[in-house]
Amino acid sequence: MSKPRATSGDQSLLRLINSVAVLSALRESSPATLTDMAASTGLSRPTVEAAIADLVEQGWASELQAEAERRVGRPARRYVFRADSGYVLGFDVGAHRVLGRLADLNGRTIHTHETQVDPQLDAESRVAVVRKVAAKCLAAGRVERSRLMAVGVGSPGIIDADGNVTVSTVLPGWVGLPLARKLSRSFHCTVLVDNDANLAAMAERGHGVAQDVDDLIYLLIGRRIGAGLVLGGRVHRGFGGAAGEIGLLDPQKWERCRELLLGPATTESLTDRHHEVTDRIITAARAGDAGALTIIDDFCAVLAQHAAAMTLTVDPEMIIIGGGLAAAGDLLLPRLRTHIDRVCIRTPRIEASTIGQEAVVLGAVQLALHSADEALHQQAAPT
Amino acid sequence: MSKPRATSGDQSLLRLINSVAVLSALRESSPATLTDMAASTGLSRPTVEAAIADLVEQGWASELQAEAERRVGRPARRYVFRADSGYVLGFDVGAHRVLGRLADLNGRTIHTHETQVDPQLDAESRVAVVRKVAAKCLAAGRVERSRLMAVGVGSPGIIDADGNVTVSTVLPGWVGLPLARKLSRSFHCTVLVDNDANLAAMAERGHGVAQDVDDLIYLLIGRRIGAGLVLGGRVHRGFGGAAGEIGLLDPQKWERCRELLLGPATTESLTDRHHEVTDRIITAARAGDAGALTIIDDFCAVLAQHAAAMTLTVDPEMIIIGGGLAAAGDLLLPRLRTHIDRVCIRTPRIEASTIGQEAVVLGAVQLALHSADEALHQQAAPT
Repeated sequence: MSKPRATSGDQSLLRLINSVAVLSALRESSPATLTDMAASTGLSRPTVEAAIADLVEQGWASELQAEAERRVGRPARRYVFRADSGYVLGFDVGAHRVLGRLADLNGRTIHTHETQVDPQLDAESRVAVVRKVAAKCLAAGRVERSRLMAVGVGSPGIIDADGNVTVSTVLPGWVGLPLARKLSRSFHCTVLVDNDANLAAMAERGHGVAQDVDDLIYLLIGRRIGAGLVLGGRVHRGFGGAAGEIGLLDPQKWERCRELLLGPATTESLTDRHHEVTDRIITAARAGDAGALTIIDDFCAVLAQHAAAMTLTVDPEMIIIGGGLAAAGDLLLPRLRTHIDRVCIRTPRIEASTIGQEAVVLGAVQLALHSADEALHQQAAPT
Repeated sequence: MSKPRATSGDQSLLRLINSVAVLSALRESSPATLTDMAASTGLSRPTVEAAIADLVEQGWASELQAEAERRVGRPARRYVFRADSGYVLGFDVGAHRVLGRLADLNGRTIHTHETQVDPQLDAESRVAVVRKVAAKCLAAGRVERSRLMAVGVGSPGIIDADGNVTVSTVLPGWVGLPLARKLSRSFHCTVLVDNDANLAAMAERGHGVAQDVDDLIYLLIGRRIGAGLVLGGRVHRGFGGAAGEIGLLDPQKWERCRELLLGPATTESLTDRHHEVTDRIITAARAGDAGALTIIDDFCAVLAQHAAAMTLTVDPEMIIIGGGLAAAGDLLLPRLRTHIDRVCIRTPRIEASTIGQEAVVLGAVQLALHSADEALHQQAAPT
């Protein structure tokens, strides 16, 4: 508890604290009348009235006019949180593409922009692509850069608490990159970076197949297997941020079976051209083609070996298959279930991602929104 | 928040709440004067005085007399928590032995009793042994059964929240056993049951090598590999209580290498006789015997495979080697480190248990003490 300060600043501090309380109530439930907000905050009606006047003046809230004219007598004034009073950007920085999304403070998408990139692109150029994607989103959404409240970034590899990449085997030159600091030069707001699988796991919980699931493993299947863990409703990063690096369990075996389905991990083959090969194999397997089914079977056996090791360790409620292969859930899920059933005491629910290729960018937007919320609340904290 | 009740019970309820606050303060720091307790509880001195009078009358606290007579004038009266105002029992129920321990409310050991049992003993008889060990501890400690405040039990297998054994491959007839309910018939207090590796993990954090470590894996090495996980300072049991069942990862390979060092998993060989064989192998390996070293090398390679899978999943700060092999840490730890280093991005600290064969029973006592504490605090909760 901070001591009450006996200065002339007290009055305005109190007013700010009340404003933030009213703003929180309005974000929770909007539109709301003064009576509604007095009830949800426990503040007196005159206090709420003063707070909402401040919020309207500062651009955080506005009065709804629509219905007022249709009614007889003097209707209760209703207020809404102005989700356009600030914006956030989210990024999914991958080997083949940079996906950016501009959203308002309610998380509503304003604009999404995707740029394909060469997997061999050097780090400096890849960061430059992120900057360009940001500019495209802001221009298309007609949002001034100064109105950004936070930026969230998902990246492969291990990211430390300051947003530096400490380990990465996927992106050239990425190790040692102070990614958050580099991007901060382009934005006058907080830039947060997290591992892509971690963000996807949280996005599945917020928007996808894992709503209300507190313990889950999200498998991001690509060139390597990455995993994001949510335990007890929170991302579990591990002591050194290396939780979920299950791709290292048996990399040679994974390489062999992965190559047949997803193509070899070289620059050339990781283009859109191989997506067509993968799609053909999946289509052939669905049609019962023996060769294609063998590729799928072998792939699932090795993927299940990794998923089983994680299941035996943490016993999650759900395992989610993410990345491009989520669309082949009809082939993958029953095979994974059979394998995991054979090894584990209890087989978790196994589901395909319902937000697919959007999971990481959705998680990045969530991360940025969370940071914007915190910033809003910290305005009220006495210094 | 509970509403204040406008009945004549209010006064005594308030007094009870104050008593519990004073009792908590006294348990935290003892001996303490009235002034000390007023400062730590925030209660007024007359309130503390009334509360301590109640506590002394009920037998929870007593006044220290020792120094008073040596001093001139009237010294401040000092009070202590009476750790002998209640007792707890902890049990380690294993294949070969039942270990029981009677402790006072400060966790001080009053008496420990161990009974060797046949690994093939049926469930009913094994539970009867637990009852006998309890009786021996109480008799030796001259503690009446009615003064027990809680009983904690560690058992192999998966234990549900009600203390029923849902899965167990180690003890005959153990699956489906309502262990907590069965033992409750012998005690007029709460009986709590948890997985043995979970309790050992918490004990290492409380008394052993993992003090102040929030993320750890405890490997209980015996006939099977069991693991207890502490994540974020709390036992992680998993959605279905099956976290740490890593022994199922590659049971055939484990069986082969385990058999050479620890003996085959049959009744006869799991006697003390094979402990001598194990000890001879360890002694020979320390002396540089090539055959013995091969057995140790192979054993460590397979153990490391299991430990690496868990490390890749949760990235703990520390891995603890528990069970009988903790004493061979000089041979095992460097080999495990080398293997895990080869696979994982970050190798956790790997340590041998410092509380060895006592880990499970210590954890069981901790579990019982925690329950006794809660019972004490709930006395103050309005019904």
